[in-house]
Formats: sequence, structure tokens, C-alpha cells
Amino acid sequence: MSIMTESQTRAGTGSSPPATSFLAPTYEGDFVLDEHLLLESGRTLAGVTLHYAVYGRLNAARDNAVLVCHALSGSALVGSWWPEIFAPGAVLSLNHDFVICINMLGSCYGSTGPGSVDPETGNIYGPDFPLVSIRDNVRAQARLLDSLGIRRLRLVLGGSIGGMQALDWAIHDPERVERAVIIGVAPLSAMGLALNHLQRKAIQHDPDWAGGHYLSQRPPRQGLALARQIGMLSYKSAGLFDERFGRNPNRNGEDPWGLDDLGGGLIGGRFDIAGYLDHQGERFIDRFDANAYLALLRTMDTWDPLRGFSSAAEAFSRIRARLSFVGISSDWLFPPEAVRDFAYTIRAAGVHADYREMTSAHGHDAFLAEQAELVRLLQ
Amino acid sequence: MSIMTESQTRAGTGSSPPATSFLAPTYEGDFVLDEHLLLESGRTLAGVTLHYAVYGRLNAARDNAVLVCHALSGSALVGSWWPEIFAPGAVLSLNHDFVICINMLGSCYGSTGPGSVDPETGNIYGPDFPLVSIRDNVRAQARLLDSLGIRRLRLVLGGSIGGMQALDWAIHDPERVERAVIIGVAPLSAMGLALNHLQRKAIQHDPDWAGGHYLSQRPPRQGLALARQIGMLSYKSAGLFDERFGRNPNRNGEDPWGLDDLGGGLIGGRFDIAGYLDHQGERFIDRFDANAYLALLRTMDTWDPLRGFSSAAEAFSRIRARLSFVGISSDWLFPPEAVRDFAYTIRAAGVHADYREMTSAHGHDAFLAEQAELVRLLQ
Repeated sequence: MSIMTESQTRAGTGSSPPATSFLAPTYEGDFVLDEHLLLESGRTLAGVTLHYAVYGRLNAARDNAVLVCHALSGSALVGSWWPEIFAPGAVLSLNHDFVICINMLGSCYGSTGPGSVDPETGNIYGPDFPLVSIRDNVRAQARLLDSLGIRRLRLVLGGSIGGMQALDWAIHDPERVERAVIIGVAPLSAMGLALNHLQRKAIQHDPDWAGGHYLSQRPPRQGLALARQIGMLSYKSAGLFDERFGRNPNRNGEDPWGLDDLGGGLIGGRFDIAGYLDHQGERFIDRFDANAYLALLRTMDTWDPLRGFSSAAEAFSRIRARLSFVGISSDWLFPPEAVRDFAYTIRAAGVHADYREMTSAHGHDAFLAEQAELVRLLQ
Repeated sequence: MSIMTESQTRAGTGSSPPATSFLAPTYEGDFVLDEHLLLESGRTLAGVTLHYAVYGRLNAARDNAVLVCHALSGSALVGSWWPEIFAPGAVLSLNHDFVICINMLGSCYGSTGPGSVDPETGNIYGPDFPLVSIRDNVRAQARLLDSLGIRRLRLVLGGSIGGMQALDWAIHDPERVERAVIIGVAPLSAMGLALNHLQRKAIQHDPDWAGGHYLSQRPPRQGLALARQIGMLSYKSAGLFDERFGRNPNRNGEDPWGLDDLGGGLIGGRFDIAGYLDHQGERFIDRFDANAYLALLRTMDTWDPLRGFSSAAEAFSRIRARLSFVGISSDWLFPPEAVRDFAYTIRAAGVHADYREMTSAHGHDAFLAEQAELVRLLQ
């Protein structure tokens, strides 16, 4: 796409690591677990590497640590994708907090994932990369915090799949977590599972996917782009799309009503929303890996905080942290009512859990797209 | 999929022509226009065939005709896909009404479409089939009604793209239409355009699509199935999916948490909603053609009742019919507020237009999935 104005480009940048307002980490590096990670599934993962970034300094009392958990396509560089959280007077302070963010297992931003070499076979995992649950991530991350001498977390926070991690932290390491902020999350609904399933199929249908054994120089680009585009429909809102794009023809001059603009009478010129989605798809395939996307979809799908407990009360009564849930008014992937009901279910187990609602037209993405609004709500 | 219970099979049958409760037409046949159809785009279509079905008998006064306009994947056999509309005391009566339903141009159920032979070249249209607008359909259908001697329509009714036709009938042939019932329709939003765009891409990505020049024995099955599945997410509702499928594993016994059930650790066993969607995709590719699907998506995308008029007042003040708009409470493709606002905009032009709302968890599909409820609302 040749002509792209700022608003068309920016509308979807929310969840992308690259950002103009960049906050450099104090340190960015790898932590390698010294023992195999036993996964919930029963499989083990050897030589697990966690790529992480820290901002600020751990104080002498080691009581100023904050863990930020990233969303599906995020990275450890929280200063790049969530910079306004660090603004003066906002949620986090580089003068007082020691902020750590850890790339999820299965991702493609430095931690062990499908693109890593399995030390036990010498081959890239590819499609054989196992299911790593949210809980498995929490257990691996705890080893990294142990190595840093962090026994208490002043705060754990995250949105979307990051919020799933934040809650699992509060359940599975209750003594370590003082407070958790869980944004735009409830148990993934059947519609959420459906959206993930179709994204998965879009990738699997790409002939270049090759059952997951694709060549690095020839990844399933079309399939990953379409998967991302399907996801974007659920991250944004109909109202935002109407306001930004309406029924306008694509701003590059294509004519949706015209004759045979592109590939015959069945296709036609694009509307502006279509040009936007195509651009978002193209940007995504340059920065993300298809197998990593599949791995994280499965991590998201299988999240069930009650798994292994006999009841909600048994699971949630473990929590010692104060919890804040944030729903987003226009979120249809995790509707605000679902987030609120989830918060109240947890409160019913005797947990200190409040619910706040962010008013935004940005849909699920609002926690990334309207950071100032989120900061206001959390202050 | 081997194990499929009635509820998994039936949940999506709404918009499918095959049905168990079958009402046979009085007559089913073809009408061939005796002159070229000049399309809004400026192109002409030669030898246009309209496949249609009629139910009941035209009375001597020729004043008992009703036109039913079908939705995207429907056919002329309204007695098969909308049987409850004909129930005793419902909306239509075979004793009193002469009901006609005409397959849309671009479809694959008998009228001229991408699978037809262009009489001017002797070749199948394929991807060169031109954009046929809703208004073009109305103009072609009017010639068929002329040939049957039908100068008045007691009622025109339709849902979704059928509702678009019903409204265009009232605008463009105002003296012929007494009443129109327009269900689940407003101008297609940016989200609607987005959903159609991704369905289009799913088909175009299929290597068997071959730019639209696919072989009849090797159509782009995977792409069409995925397109249909994306569409289904917008035809149904999150609430219905939660109620029917929740987070249950697929009823055939697959385990979403299990190890490498299907093709490695990145994929896993399906949830029930995924099994349902896959089944719906498989059913659809046996009954619909990919190029026809693309043609109708474009017909839907480009619908703009104001096109060619200087204002909404100029367009809508042409209407002589009494209009009833029906919104569906859980429809997110055409939200009830959008349908209501659209009705009120038309009413502001001096048209007799009322708005009714159908309470249903079935989403956009409710006019097909909960026919008894619709009948109650229209009585």
C-alpha cells in the first residue's frame, strides 16, 4: 500500500512492540532455567530460556518489584509498548519501582518457543513445541524472580493474556503478590475460542505452513496476516471502525464501486477499512512468527484458573493479593459484564477484588491504545 | 467429523436451503430477460436468467402477490428455508397469497452468476462476472413480475441482504409496493465491510481459487469453508455460543488440553465450538460456489440506498409503501440500534415506517433460526 496517512497507520499500533515513544530498559537479557521445566501436560521442556527486560533499580529491601505481563503479540520491552504507564505520576515510577517484564514461553521475542532448538534433539521445535500453559509460564517466571532475589511483588499487572498471567500469579504464588491489576480478561468465551480457532485455520491453510515445518525464508505470510486481521476485528470495536473508516473508499484511491479495479468483477476496489486491515496484516508478518502465534493461541485457549481445583472457592481463596479488575466498555472479546462478573465471583471467595470500567471506543485494545485513560482509572 | 449430535448439527441450519420441513413450490422455473440488463456500473449482462419459485395462486385481480427476497446463501425455495412464515395464521397463507421468491443474480442456485456461460463469449464468467448491485437485482426482478402480470405487491419482505432488496424495491418501484418488511438490516458498517473483506481474502488465499479460474472438480474448498466460518461468527451471538458450546471439549472426544492429539503441540484437540464451526464449513462447501459467494459479498458491500440521490430525503420520500423494520436484540452485524436509527431516518422523510425488535439470543441469524418468534412479532 503506497498511500497511508498517520491515522490509518496508527490505528492499530497498540499492541505492537515498535513505538516512537521508547523507554530504554535498564537491562535486557536472558535467564536460563537450570533444570527441566515440568509442564502441566506432563511433558518437560529442557534448557528453558526466559528473555526479560528490567526498568529502574531493585532497592536494598527488595520490596519495590513490579511484574508486567505482556499480551499476545507483546515482548519483554514494556517501556516500548506501554510507555505511558511510566509517565510522571502514572502507575509506575522509574525512581521508585523495579519493573520486570518477561517474554512468554512460546513467543518469538527471545524466550523459548517453537523457533528455538530443542537441546535434546538438536532440531528446531517447530510444530512439536508443547503446550505451555499460563500456569507453566508463571512457574518458569518464578524461577527468574527467585534468581533476582525478588520474594515480594508490589504489583503484578497485565491486560488480555497478560491479565491471565497476573491472576494465575495471585493464585499460584499467593505469598509473593501484594496486588494484581487484571485488565480486559475473563475466562475465554466460546466466541473467543471460535475466533482463535479460525485464526489457527487461516495459518494452517497457508500452503507455506507445511504442517509447521516451514522454511524461515518462506513462512506462511498470507495465513499469518489473515489470522492477525481476524484477531484485530475482535480487538477493536465496530464504533471505532465506523468513526475512523466508515464506508469510505480506500484512501489510496481504489474504487469499491468501480469496474475490475483489481483482479476482476468479483473483487473490486477496497474500502478504507479493508486497506487498513491489509496494512495491519502486512506489518504483523514482518514482526511475528506463525508457529509462535499458534503456540500462544493454545496457551490462551486452555487458560482455566480452576483447573486442578475442586471448586472456585478452593482456587480463589488461595489469593492474598488485592485485585483490581478493569473492564473496557466497548470490548466484545472480553465484554465488561463478563470481567465484572468474574471479579465478583472471585470476591465471593473472600478475596479483596474491585472492578473498574474504562470508557473507550477502542475495544479490547483500549488498554494499549488509550493508555492515558487507563492510567487515570488506575490512579 | 464422525460424532455429531442433533444440536451441533442444527445450530447453524438457519440459512441453509436444505431443511426437513419442506414446503413444495407450486412452480419452479426460469425467466430469461429478452434484452440485455444494463447494470449500474455501466456494463451490460446478456441473456440474464432468473430462477424463481412460486407458492399459491395469483388471484384474478392479481392483487395477492408477495415477494420474498432471500439472504446471502439462500435460494428461490423460500418454502424450504422459511417454512414457518407459511404456518397457519402466520405471515403468509397459501390459500390467499401468491408468493414469489427469485434467486439473486450472482448466486449459484439457478440465476445467472459467475458459474454461468457468458453468451457473448461462450465462456464461463468466472472472475469476470460483473458487480450486480441490489438495485440491478430489483430491476431484473421487476421484468419477471411484469411478465407475470404482477403490477402490485401486497408485501415485499426479506432479512439481511434480502432486506436490502426489499427497501430498494420500495424506493425504486414505489407504485408497485404496498408494504415492506425489512429485517436485520441497516447500511453495512465498517465492521461489516471488514468481515466481508476477510471472508474474501480467505477464498483468494486458497491456492485452488486460481484467481477465480478454478476447475469445477477442484474448487477452493478450504478457503470457502473458512469464509463461511468467519461469516458465521457474525451471524450468531456470543451468548448463544456460550450456552450451546461453552468451553466444552469437542463432543467427538478430542482433548484441547491433551498432548499432540492432532498434528503436534501447536494445534491440539478442538473445543466443541471449533468442531461445530468446522462442521458448518464442511456442509457449506458442498452446497455453495466460491465465486458466487464473492459476487454476493460485493453486492452486499456496495449497497447504498442513497447512491445517485442528492439527499436521504430525496431517496426516501419516493417510498409509498408502509415499512416495518425488525431489529434483533443480539445481532452484532446489524445491531438493533442501527436498524432502529435507520428506520427513524427513513420515517423523517415522511415515510410510514415502524420499528419492532425481536428478542433472541441467535444473533443476526434469528430471522431464520427463530422463525416462530419472528412470526409472532409480525402478526
